[in-house]
Amino acid sequence: MNQCNVIISHEHTHAEQLTGRTAIVIDTLRATTVMITALEAGARSIRCVAEPEDALTLKARDPELILGGERHALKIPGFDLSNSPLDYTRETIGGRDLVMTTSNGTRALLKSGAAQTVLIGCLRNARAVIRHALSLERDIILINAGTGGRFTLDDFITAGAMIREIDGEAVLSDEALAARLLYEAHPDIHSALTESLHYRRLSGLGMDEDLAFCLKTDQTDLIGTMNDGIITRL
Amino acid sequence: MNQCNVIISHEHTHAEQLTGRTAIVIDTLRATTVMITALEAGARSIRCVAEPEDALTLKARDPELILGGERHALKIPGFDLSNSPLDYTRETIGGRDLVMTTSNGTRALLKSGAAQTVLIGCLRNARAVIRHALSLERDIILINAGTGGRFTLDDFITAGAMIREIDGEAVLSDEALAARLLYEAHPDIHSALTESLHYRRLSGLGMDEDLAFCLKTDQTDLIGTMNDGIITRL
Repeated sequence: MNQCNVIISHEHTHAEQLTGRTAIVIDTLRATTVMITALEAGARSIRCVAEPEDALTLKARDPELILGGERHALKIPGFDLSNSPLDYTRETIGGRDLVMTTSNGTRALLKSGAAQTVLIGCLRNARAVIRHALSLERDIILINAGTGGRFTLDDFITAGAMIREIDGEAVLSDEALAARLLYEAHPDIHSALTESLHYRRLSGLGMDEDLAFCLKTDQTDLIGTMNDGIITRL
Repeated sequence: MNQCNVIISHEHTHAEQLTGRTAIVIDTLRATTVMITALEAGARSIRCVAEPEDALTLKARDPELILGGERHALKIPGFDLSNSPLDYTRETIGGRDLVMTTSNGTRALLKSGAAQTVLIGCLRNARAVIRHALSLERDIILINAGTGGRFTLDDFITAGAMIREIDGEAVLSDEALAARLLYEAHPDIHSALTESLHYRRLSGLGMDEDLAFCLKTDQTDLIGTMNDGIITRL
């Protein structure tokens, strides 16, 4: 029987856990939600880089690139778009190649390359992405980006929203079981998160529209996958 | 404002996180439940050692010592008592000094010495131990022993049973918040654990009486504390 486990932050992600497995990388607030939204809006590709300078160097060579992301939750100087999914529309990103750097999500993706398949997960594509992962019939690792290397409840409950779809096709680790029980107790998501660190920080910055957008479950069947560091629509 | 955090296994426990703080070490199934039960039954002291040989060496020097604990959940050859709390009665342990070694709980305790105060926590003394910790007015770290270095749901929900008592006296980390939400959704405990790894293992070994005993909440006000490696009744 295949296994399903949750890794609670990018700091706890090690290549040897991923070999031969399917990884779903989750940064609900907000990087992986941005990625799925950008692909839905017609972005051709997304490349993750570690630092803002890496993105600016790429753009200096290819001015057609669109740069997106955040530091301290805010838009980076010289970048085209912030880390708000609301920035990513057909007008801003349709047909374009995106380069992203964020504090947590892109780091988790850069550490996930050892997995056999890397999928992009958020609440908005929760059911679609886990169903696709199950169809691959391998162990599944849900990688929470976390915040600053730490556990973050928004990513963990998103893992739970995916795991509720597993009905005997995989054995759940205790982490996976805990995530599912949390989701089942708080399917509206917001009631679980109002006291959580990242939610409060974004709300304090006036980003309630982003929170409302990111915390909607099962809005799209779009699946994103990363190959050789480039994310595209499956 | 003081902080309250949960560390999810003894593998994630590092001395620098503990300095100046109050630690509550939790191994609900079953080591810390055994310790509280032994102290209730009149044990004079409990010393944790890493390996069975360490305990046997101590007993060779002092035959009055009582040795207790487990490997692979079973009694260790040459030991007096197993890791079942039901073994620890006034007759077997009253007035005696106990030496314990277990797979997870005693290891977590051996790694916790850097904390300003180390308390012994389980479901049976959940309210009493967290109230005492709050009275010390320092940051509180709930150290889950875990299983084999991994997260285990029984310890995490026990942390949640403690954290529900915190009412504005400390800021909760996201781990602490998740544990509280899990406990609030499953205050009977058993409904959360029936699919969990450690619960299933013990149930499979016929230890349902132990499970029933360990998973009762708020049965005693007894508090155990560790000083220089020796656990006594506060």
